[in-house]
Amino acid sequence: MIKVGIIGAGRIGKVHTESIQKYVKCAQVKTIADPFLNDDTIAWAKGLGVQNFTKDYKDILNDKEIDAVLICSSTDTHCPISLEAIAAGKHIFCEKPVDPEPKNILKVKEALKGKNIKYQVGFNRRFDHNFMAAKEAVKSGKIGDLNVLKVCSRDPGAPPVSYIKVSGGIFLDMTIHDFDMVRFISGAEVEEIYAMGAVLVDPEIATAGDIDTAVITMKLSNGALAVIDNCRRASYGYDQRVEAFGSLGQVQIGNDTVSTAIISNADGVTKEKPLYFFLERYMQAYAKEITEFFDCIENDKEVPAGIEDGLQSVLIGRAATKSYKGGRPVKMSEMM
Amino acid sequence: MIKVGIIGAGRIGKVHTESIQKYVKCAQVKTIADPFLNDDTIAWAKGLGVQNFTKDYKDILNDKEIDAVLICSSTDTHCPISLEAIAAGKHIFCEKPVDPEPKNILKVKEALKGKNIKYQVGFNRRFDHNFMAAKEAVKSGKIGDLNVLKVCSRDPGAPPVSYIKVSGGIFLDMTIHDFDMVRFISGAEVEEIYAMGAVLVDPEIATAGDIDTAVITMKLSNGALAVIDNCRRASYGYDQRVEAFGSLGQVQIGNDTVSTAIISNADGVTKEKPLYFFLERYMQAYAKEITEFFDCIENDKEVPAGIEDGLQSVLIGRAATKSYKGGRPVKMSEMM
Amino acid sequence: MIKVGIIGAGRIGKVHTESIQKYVKCAQVKTIADPFLNDDTIAWAKGLGVQNFTKDYKDILNDKEIDAVLICSSTDTHCPISLEAIAAGKHIFCEKPVDPEPKNILKVKEALKGKNIKYQVGFNRRFDHNFMAAKEAVKSGKIGDLNVLKVCSRDPGAPPVSYIKVSGGIFLDMTIHDFDMVRFISGAEVEEIYAMGAVLVDPEIATAGDIDTAVITMKLSNGALAVIDNCRRASYGYDQRVEAFGSLGQVQIGNDTVSTAIISNADGVTKEKPLYFFLERYMQAYAKEITEFFDCIENDKEVPAGIEDGLQSVLIGRAATKSYKGGRPVKMSEMM
Amino acid sequence: MIKVGIIGAGRIGKVHTESIQKYVKCAQVKTIADPFLNDDTIAWAKGLGVQNFTKDYKDILNDKEIDAVLICSSTDTHCPISLEAIAAGKHIFCEKPVDPEPKNILKVKEALKGKNIKYQVGFNRRFDHNFMAAKEAVKSGKIGDLNVLKVCSRDPGAPPVSYIKVSGGIFLDMTIHDFDMVRFISGAEVEEIYAMGAVLVDPEIATAGDIDTAVITMKLSNGALAVIDNCRRASYGYDQRVEAFGSLGQVQIGNDTVSTAIISNADGVTKEKPLYFFLERYMQAYAKEITEFFDCIENDKEVPAGIEDGLQSVLIGRAATKSYKGGRPVKMSEMM
Repeated sequence: MIKVGIIGAGRIGKVHTESIQKYVKCAQVKTIADPFLNDDTIAWAKGLGVQNFTKDYKDILNDKEIDAVLICSSTDTHCPISLEAIAAGKHIFCEKPVDPEPKNILKVKEALKGKNIKYQVGFNRRFDHNFMAAKEAVKSGKIGDLNVLKVCSRDPGAPPVSYIKVSGGIFLDMTIHDFDMVRFISGAEVEEIYAMGAVLVDPEIATAGDIDTAVITMKLSNGALAVIDNCRRASYGYDQRVEAFGSLGQVQIGNDTVSTAIISNADGVTKEKPLYFFLERYMQAYAKEITEFFDCIENDKEVPAGIEDGLQSVLIGRAATKSYKGGRPVKMSEMM
Repeated sequence: MIKVGIIGAGRIGKVHTESIQKYVKCAQVKTIADPFLNDDTIAWAKGLGVQNFTKDYKDILNDKEIDAVLICSSTDTHCPISLEAIAAGKHIFCEKPVDPEPKNILKVKEALKGKNIKYQVGFNRRFDHNFMAAKEAVKSGKIGDLNVLKVCSRDPGAPPVSYIKVSGGIFLDMTIHDFDMVRFISGAEVEEIYAMGAVLVDPEIATAGDIDTAVITMKLSNGALAVIDNCRRASYGYDQRVEAFGSLGQVQIGNDTVSTAIISNADGVTKEKPLYFFLERYMQAYAKEITEFFDCIENDKEVPAGIEDGLQSVLIGRAATKSYKGGRPVKMSEMM
Repeated sequence: MIKVGIIGAGRIGKVHTESIQKYVKCAQVKTIADPFLNDDTIAWAKGLGVQNFTKDYKDILNDKEIDAVLICSSTDTHCPISLEAIAAGKHIFCEKPVDPEPKNILKVKEALKGKNIKYQVGFNRRFDHNFMAAKEAVKSGKIGDLNVLKVCSRDPGAPPVSYIKVSGGIFLDMTIHDFDMVRFISGAEVEEIYAMGAVLVDPEIATAGDIDTAVITMKLSNGALAVIDNCRRASYGYDQRVEAFGSLGQVQIGNDTVSTAIISNADGVTKEKPLYFFLERYMQAYAKEITEFFDCIENDKEVPAGIEDGLQSVLIGRAATKSYKGGRPVKMSEMM
Repeated sequence: MIKVGIIGAGRIGKVHTESIQKYVKCAQVKTIADPFLNDDTIAWAKGLGVQNFTKDYKDILNDKEIDAVLICSSTDTHCPISLEAIAAGKHIFCEKPVDPEPKNILKVKEALKGKNIKYQVGFNRRFDHNFMAAKEAVKSGKIGDLNVLKVCSRDPGAPPVSYIKVSGGIFLDMTIHDFDMVRFISGAEVEEIYAMGAVLVDPEIATAGDIDTAVITMKLSNGALAVIDNCRRASYGYDQRVEAFGSLGQVQIGNDTVSTAIISNADGVTKEKPLYFFLERYMQAYAKEITEFFDCIENDKEVPAGIEDGLQSVLIGRAATKSYKGGRPVKMSEMM
């Protein structure tokens, strides 16, 4: 039984705790650390069989019984805690982004060298049944050589402007998932990027120095072209689609709905909207992601999303920012 | 050039006239006969290049130049005019139903024996792109042996009760098309039938001695089961669907729409309604039906829907009526 | 914490045990009873936190600590064990069918009178997200008054003929779920039924005295018509659809798939097949069903599928059998 | 009756001739001019009622009886013949592109000034039922303010390299239609453009100095972003889709198919491919385009696609070429 420490019991820390306790047979959460730990969280965690609580994550790192930690704390703490956890010999699951600064991620990468430590980054979409089906269609050769990869990713609504101010910008905060999907589905690297953006949802976002709508084009190392379109608000819910077009055909994946119901009446023929909230849409993906992390530890497999994936997505996000600000295409070779 | 006489210039007579003038290269309407002929009809027909008009259809039958007639007059005249037209040696396209009375249809069938006359009955749905695709999937063996054939057929709205009173009842007026579709798609004959019905649209229809909603099950000569569901009113338009299920799979055909547009918004994801009006839905089918009739004449082919098809659909309609009224399944062998 | 005894640890008993241990916060399985209990089952159950095992279900009934039992044993034991469990004052969840003989179900119904016991019957489809959406659309008035209810229910493959021989026939074994769906979605009772059947999948099924394909029409107490079509084999998977058509519109529900992926290539535009296996399709429904049972106990609510529902579905199944064998429509009033 | 001269009886000239003779009540083709006129073409045209033929288009321009001309000759002749036809006082329908050189189009624009001449450019997609539905959804405000407009346009197969060499490049030959769709659906002008391209279909296309796959992003005058993706080959047919996303929702239009048939079997659930050939897909659009041209003449309306539309699409195509070749975004203000 792998003993686990959860560092950070916010929304995503709770999701992972629940997944481990319910679905992962080979692991058990021993301790939860959170500086803002409150009674509600403790009661909730006890209901799931968690017994130990602390406000100091170092208690987890110092606990010899704990084999693995999940770093679900705020982004600025990801790298420092990662380095400490590596030093303590723990396996690590770290939420994305590892860090907005590539040089910090490189330090983690460096520290991992030669260590027998699993380090997985929280790219949950890699475990979503739809994205997996798209990846599989590309990888298996069903659509032939990839020609054009299109990712459409829209949030149901914009976060508060206060959040946007500290988010690192749309490309590092929101598109980072889509950049990872481009790499995941294409199995290729981004070589060049051009980002066009606009503020169409809320003028306050402009005053915060960010944009809310973007179209980003990329050249990939396998010769294919890729394009992402983002918007911070979609009236009809969380819209997450991919279209991969190749020499032999195309695969498209769409959104999940609560049911398959279709209503026909005088107004038209109406299906349900996409699931509105990302936790609904990706609940199964979160469970699968965490299950696979422990499977990698137990069976000494390579993690499905490692530190290099964490690094690349941040580098691409920064290249997109540079492209948008400079009004010109940016080669990834400029970023290293 | 085949010279054509149109007998009856009502709605359907006009549809056929227009099709011949526009799409049928080997035929030309010479004369239109209608007892209620008016200036509007004449002006409209002249615009299509028709030159001769009469109130008496016998003028057409007596015209030696005319090779073929379309009988689009009221149902009670179909058989008498058919017999006269056969005597005059004309090829005949007759609207459905040929006659509510099988014995009258049998007289026409008898009269046709040994004659080199094409006699086509107006089962337009046989020429619809969707129904043809269903037929083709069954005939080609794509779905294996037919097990269950389902026909859903709903009108957008009920006709006036005055019409219903003289319609011969829902099974002969509305379901007759669906009975023909069962025979057309299955390539088999009906052996036994059971009809359940209700008045759910308009109580006035009950006072007219008819029903407006029905579910009819059938045993076919190839062992398959068939079921039709009918309603005189569908709020979302003219609903015409088929599902043919067999040992290797299933084919389903659905409705046509004005466009493929899908609107996603806070209310859902909405496609267009089916085309509302049967003339819209079947416009191309009417043109194809009439084109094939003249092709059969020109190239001496067998007509795609002949007098036997006209007879069978009426026999089945009458068996359904008998079943509904008697509250019991009826074998087709009882009907002959 | 409600203490639970599982009687019968076959496939469905295991499904429910897992659901309780993982998803039901207010209940815990204390003991599993199964005459064929083996080491694998014990190991599996211990992994879920179950501690006590017995070959004799009476050990469960005699355990004062146990509040509720799940009867997942063979059909012939449902009624006797139900009666004993009622006598022991346990809440009961009983798999369907309660019994093929209405008189036995009536004994259970009688025994429940005046007792403060929850008795739920295992109609899992009532808890499926799709069927619930259909029910909701009808109940909320979205489609107006119900006119025609269509249930299509096809298994991916026929069970062994040895099973069919003791199954009670297709109407009691397979269609019973669909009869329950007709009652559940329509909110009405069946008044009259006519069943047409055929052997089209496997001639061995005929020698076993059963059929494998059926179309069943019904008149409902609210005036609507209903039709079910069944087949024991669908090449493309487990096909479970409903169409409810009413005065204001229609609701249709379809099948679930592994993903939303659509592949376009030279062969066509292809979506995934329906989930093949009923446990896949209804996994969430089983969890929800069992969660609601314990919610009814904890909060003293009316069970969502009670003994009367168990009785009615069996009566309708027997009426269908009678109709099919007699070749005539059967009124439900004949069955009481 | 408007008398018409057809200049150029190639594929598209024939399509228009047929449309006029069959569908346009107020117009009649009097004369066809084509330097390569042959017996087949004459026989075909006589079958449609055309009587006069010439190898010299000047015969048409000199015919005082002729009111309108259709310029369907090779692209290099569009502008010279347009200027002559304007001088002759004819109404003009000119195929696209008017000319690859904006300065030549400007000459035509200049010549039209103050003349009472209708000049329509052949942007057939503006008359397609699907694109019209997308335009209507945007224009009516159904999707709110436009945020992102996506056009996917793929040919079923690449034209011969010999054609590509003289085509003016993919942006002027193929994307020009999509640029027009961006303007048509958005109701806005392109302000800035960035084009990424690749040779993924056929390396011969590279040796011809062209590309076969492209992703083009644009900033529009209403603030929205637009993106087009093109490929010269789609294994599944002619793929023409639009997605317009706005503050209140989204409209998507897709491809037409021969029928609505869906086959479910062990391989999946398969719909038909898009219509393969552009003449099939746009046949109705061609008829509507030409009908509207004559309606504009008869009722003195503004043409739905005029010389300015012809000019803008060419300017955008040249800007895309400039962007692709320069590897940088290009502002439309640079192009004037």
